[in-house]
Amino acid sequence: MSVVVPVIMSGGSGTRLWPLSRSAHPKQLHALVTELSMVQETALRVSSTSRDFQFERPIIVLNEVQHELARLQLEAMSVPTSHFVIEPVARNTAAVAAVAAHLVAREYGPDALVLLLPADHHIRDVPAFHEAVETAASAASSGAITTFGIKPTGPETGYGYIERGEAMSGAFRVKRFTEKPNREVAQSFLDTGRFFWNAGIFLFGSGAVIGEMEQLCAPIAEAAKKALTHADAIGDEVNLCAESFAECPSSSFDYAVMEKTDKAVVIPADIGWSDIGAWQALFDVAEDKTADGNVERGDVHLVDTRNSYVMSSGPRVGVVGLHNVVVVVTGDAVLVSDVSRTQDVKELVNALKEEGRSELL
Amino acid sequence: MSVVVPVIMSGGSGTRLWPLSRSAHPKQLHALVTELSMVQETALRVSSTSRDFQFERPIIVLNEVQHELARLQLEAMSVPTSHFVIEPVARNTAAVAAVAAHLVAREYGPDALVLLLPADHHIRDVPAFHEAVETAASAASSGAITTFGIKPTGPETGYGYIERGEAMSGAFRVKRFTEKPNREVAQSFLDTGRFFWNAGIFLFGSGAVIGEMEQLCAPIAEAAKKALTHADAIGDEVNLCAESFAECPSSSFDYAVMEKTDKAVVIPADIGWSDIGAWQALFDVAEDKTADGNVERGDVHLVDTRNSYVMSSGPRVGVVGLHNVVVVVTGDAVLVSDVSRTQDVKELVNALKEEGRSELL
Repeated sequence: MSVVVPVIMSGGSGTRLWPLSRSAHPKQLHALVTELSMVQETALRVSSTSRDFQFERPIIVLNEVQHELARLQLEAMSVPTSHFVIEPVARNTAAVAAVAAHLVAREYGPDALVLLLPADHHIRDVPAFHEAVETAASAASSGAITTFGIKPTGPETGYGYIERGEAMSGAFRVKRFTEKPNREVAQSFLDTGRFFWNAGIFLFGSGAVIGEMEQLCAPIAEAAKKALTHADAIGDEVNLCAESFAECPSSSFDYAVMEKTDKAVVIPADIGWSDIGAWQALFDVAEDKTADGNVERGDVHLVDTRNSYVMSSGPRVGVVGLHNVVVVVTGDAVLVSDVSRTQDVKELVNALKEEGRSELL
Repeated sequence: MSVVVPVIMSGGSGTRLWPLSRSAHPKQLHALVTELSMVQETALRVSSTSRDFQFERPIIVLNEVQHELARLQLEAMSVPTSHFVIEPVARNTAAVAAVAAHLVAREYGPDALVLLLPADHHIRDVPAFHEAVETAASAASSGAITTFGIKPTGPETGYGYIERGEAMSGAFRVKRFTEKPNREVAQSFLDTGRFFWNAGIFLFGSGAVIGEMEQLCAPIAEAAKKALTHADAIGDEVNLCAESFAECPSSSFDYAVMEKTDKAVVIPADIGWSDIGAWQALFDVAEDKTADGNVERGDVHLVDTRNSYVMSSGPRVGVVGLHNVVVVVTGDAVLVSDVSRTQDVKELVNALKEEGRSELL
């Protein structure tokens, strides 16, 4: 059947996981959920399977600062990769999709499929993920542009929502996308039973998406193509042309393509997904909680403490008499937060930016 | 009038102020309440006054590990000292009182008064303290062994309580001592209006206390005298004889002398006293709280946080969405505690002892 080329987007900065996640060592390069880093887990997840499709060696898209560490981590695991595509500037996911589609079409032909996925998501049930990929690959082979839909577990306001339309084999046409609704709207979506969270994982034919982007967002398609054509390639390293890529409008693939195309299909994916967006998510996915409901990582000691996440990458940490807190300690910074407020860690990061404290970012 | 020789007990370890307070750098050598360290503040507090008595240069009692730093701090302030008495082992306050009494009697005669005071107490109202010293000196000149009594502000269970007896000029005979009562008993004491907290500050005639200790606790009096007689004196440094001092029973001055003598007198001392026993006490005495009731020390940033004490001696600290917490950060350790639970920091210290983590103690 079809060739599926995984394209792992590893260029994010993961600021809400400060102080562990830093620009030169972002969350996807940390071992947060398992003993492996998230990019290592992601690469393993898209290596060989025994199904009807076969994963080609993945393409890794990232920036120069993260390149060396990501490469070392992947080499350490003996996961074969095809290319490291270096973004000279960040231009969001539509630009990455366009570059990926052109690169895959050039190397494997326009019928080859692209599995575009972030490097910093946790997927608990890998066999179910592979099953979803198989369903998506089947739809994409018929021209669909597919996105993976997660069954919502609550009226989260930080995600995009997808309303399903007409049923297809194991999938649904997309009726509508709604980006980050408020709580009431999110709850009304849940009540209908017809909505998914948008996981930000896409599978599409490289030729199909190129054609669609040329229709829907030509400036992005053109700038991305030019950046690839004029790229500086050294071995497996593809340095996108800085001048061309800088001209590319910055837009999400959701907004630039998925919300506009009539080829959008959502694949229900009951795969134990979490985007590990903030510390609370890491607390939620931890499977080694103590009897007191705590997660303990590193040199920590807890007294009368419950339902808390305490992690240290070095210093000794003692916690006394607290419930529902997150404590994250590195050599040069400390976070202490209510579990329910870890989204607001971005405010701490913003304060550091305003203070010009780049050494802590 | 009388000569008053301050004897500053600076040998404590202040473990409940972990992680800042360490054996080689205990709380009295940190600037916790003001810009000066607590031993510096204590020495300043007993330097020249314009009252009827005159403070002689203080004697500092401490251990070898703390000696150099304490000396540097006091020299840096140009506070003249008379002797640094080095304890080869810790033998509690009765032994210190006996050594101090012998040293003062030898140098200033048996009528000279000893003001025995810990180096790690905060006293907000220094003029009121001097007034209390004057009252105590007057009583001690007539043979009393005086202790400073603090008006209780709540049924604290961590202090000793003193019941007052017959009134004397500005003071009371002591009717009874009660060490660390439970909460109900403490409340019943408060209800009578006749109890003081025992501040652990004593003033007595050197000859008088020697005589009393020879009666009430002869083994302590003798071992202390021997340790001083056989001390190794180099310049202003008095190294107590290790062999003799090791033989000295370890007992508090309260227990060995005050609870047994009929010469005990309590001096009401409304002096803004705090023993800074734990982080909560430091929070309570802080006079620079923000509008949200926080105390912020060092490189810290608080978001939606109230009534909290956040201190860092180095690393950046961010706190999000918490109330009533204490966060103390040093280069190698972190404490996070509910404000009301900081007494239990000793459990963290005990855990470190059990783990043999002397580098953190």
